[in-house]
Amino acid sequence: VPNPRLLSPALLLALLASAAVPAQEPADADTDAAAKPLSAQEILDASPDAHWRTLDPANTLYMELDAGRVVIELAPQFAPGHVDNIRTLAKEGFWDGLSIYRSQDNFVVQFGDPTEEEAERKSLGSAKAHLPAEFERAAAGLDFTALPDPDGWAPQVGFVDGFPAARDPATGTAWMAHCYGALGAGRDMAADSSTGAELYVVTGQSPRQLDRNITLVGRVVDGIELLSVIPRGPDPMGFYEDPARRTPIRAIHLASEVPPAERSHLEVLRTDSATFAAATEARRNRRDGWYKVRAGHIDLCNVPLPVREAKADDAG
Amino acid sequence: VPNPRLLSPALLLALLASAAVPAQEPADADTDAAAKPLSAQEILDASPDAHWRTLDPANTLYMELDAGRVVIELAPQFAPGHVDNIRTLAKEGFWDGLSIYRSQDNFVVQFGDPTEEEAERKSLGSAKAHLPAEFERAAAGLDFTALPDPDGWAPQVGFVDGFPAARDPATGTAWMAHCYGALGAGRDMAADSSTGAELYVVTGQSPRQLDRNITLVGRVVDGIELLSVIPRGPDPMGFYEDPARRTPIRAIHLASEVPPAERSHLEVLRTDSATFAAATEARRNRRDGWYKVRAGHIDLCNVPLPVREAKADDAG
Repeated sequence: VPNPRLLSPALLLALLASAAVPAQEPADADTDAAAKPLSAQEILDASPDAHWRTLDPANTLYMELDAGRVVIELAPQFAPGHVDNIRTLAKEGFWDGLSIYRSQDNFVVQFGDPTEEEAERKSLGSAKAHLPAEFERAAAGLDFTALPDPDGWAPQVGFVDGFPAARDPATGTAWMAHCYGALGAGRDMAADSSTGAELYVVTGQSPRQLDRNITLVGRVVDGIELLSVIPRGPDPMGFYEDPARRTPIRAIHLASEVPPAERSHLEVLRTDSATFAAATEARRNRRDGWYKVRAGHIDLCNVPLPVREAKADDAG
Repeated sequence: VPNPRLLSPALLLALLASAAVPAQEPADADTDAAAKPLSAQEILDASPDAHWRTLDPANTLYMELDAGRVVIELAPQFAPGHVDNIRTLAKEGFWDGLSIYRSQDNFVVQFGDPTEEEAERKSLGSAKAHLPAEFERAAAGLDFTALPDPDGWAPQVGFVDGFPAARDPATGTAWMAHCYGALGAGRDMAADSSTGAELYVVTGQSPRQLDRNITLVGRVVDGIELLSVIPRGPDPMGFYEDPARRTPIRAIHLASEVPPAERSHLEVLRTDSATFAAATEARRNRRDGWYKVRAGHIDLCNVPLPVREAKADDAG
């Protein structure tokens, strides 16, 4: 049985031949395939196209930075009021020319208009200046795919339409979870003080203590690595006092407002598919020869959302 | 009762007056202090000096980058063989002039000598070319401060001398946990193939599935934000094929080998102190007015290690 790593691309091979930490999804290319379970990557590679979906352009934001595009999927099933407002803000170009004005290590980046005086801030245009908090909703009506493992922060965790989520059978409520890449609507002290104009993306260890304390509105699907490397602002909270250190936002637009030729073409694995269940199980118990101890567990925020380039030219 | 945020510094005030995500440790400066519990920050501010410790220069590494210094504390109580080797490698300047040659988003940075051919790699000098794996050890003899909350990956979790750790009462073993900032020794397929020459630091969501699968040797105490912003290398694993994109390492030296005048002067909160227990409890149940729902829980890797500048000129 050859070393499974020998089938990696040339440089990877070279680097892996030296001491290395494995990929999060090691390619398990053992030739003795019939005798052993598939790795998560092999399961994805063998998945039927029906287990993948394209993004709805009306629920997809493109954040255009000098470094490239961040693709965000909005979650109207959890935060309909905020998503409506965000659609309006995007259509009217609210964020165009604004900036990412906060980057706190192991926590979040935050963007919008940091102007101190409320009267001097950029107009919200046709968007609403006041919205109800959307911290949680009724669990009924959601297609909730539960993870098998316990979670310290919630009675039950899993996925809804690709979004990491939690629910409480005792109260019949469900909410999105603060995992890496989660997009939320900043607020002041009052629960209902967010409008969706000030947004943040989680770029560190999942701050689950924020769950049910702030309205989550979506998640980054592609390009998170453009946000996670933004140099950290000053302690303690990473707000850039110097405007020159802020990261300019060229534009944030709905995919549906972008000409089809300029759209990204991504497919996301359906989290209610057998492929997602099998790939997650392969991560709960890694059977790659590199692993000596199988965890028999996975935390909600350790489950990646598989994303791939679309084969056809579906917009997304 | 004034808005507690009004006591923040001027700019922070301005930004917090607009919609914002709170700090991970909100300054809870309500004037009605007698009537309510202290915040984590207030607990730290009021802590006796005896609850803090300086770093042992013989167990402290300085990684010198163009961007600044990363301070690492080694854990000989968990990985004595690897720490011995790392001390030797540092004393002999093994990493000086080498590079960080991998940055994988939401996972790790990795550094050392990426040369493909083993025969062409930089000599380990007096360091050992072979070490036993140090994935776990006997729990007996460790000062283990348990967290009150359950963990999905291990029967029990807590802290040992500042290091996030786990233990299994059934087997009597203990091990360090892969939290943000953990420093580990890369290895090949064989469990005992690490030498400490190739090292990685966790820069993403805690990859706890690596626990007991690889030898952890310490943790970053200061300067992690210099590593976490390193631009990500190419998919899937973030290895830079182009040497020009690697981050040069000026030097990695033991603090004890650095002239006292050039040392950092840090103090770390003792994780067996009443202050650490109280600050952790304040994070398990946030009583800041911003929080509407208290988690009643904290995950091991969400507990920060408080670090401060030393008041005296103790080396560390």
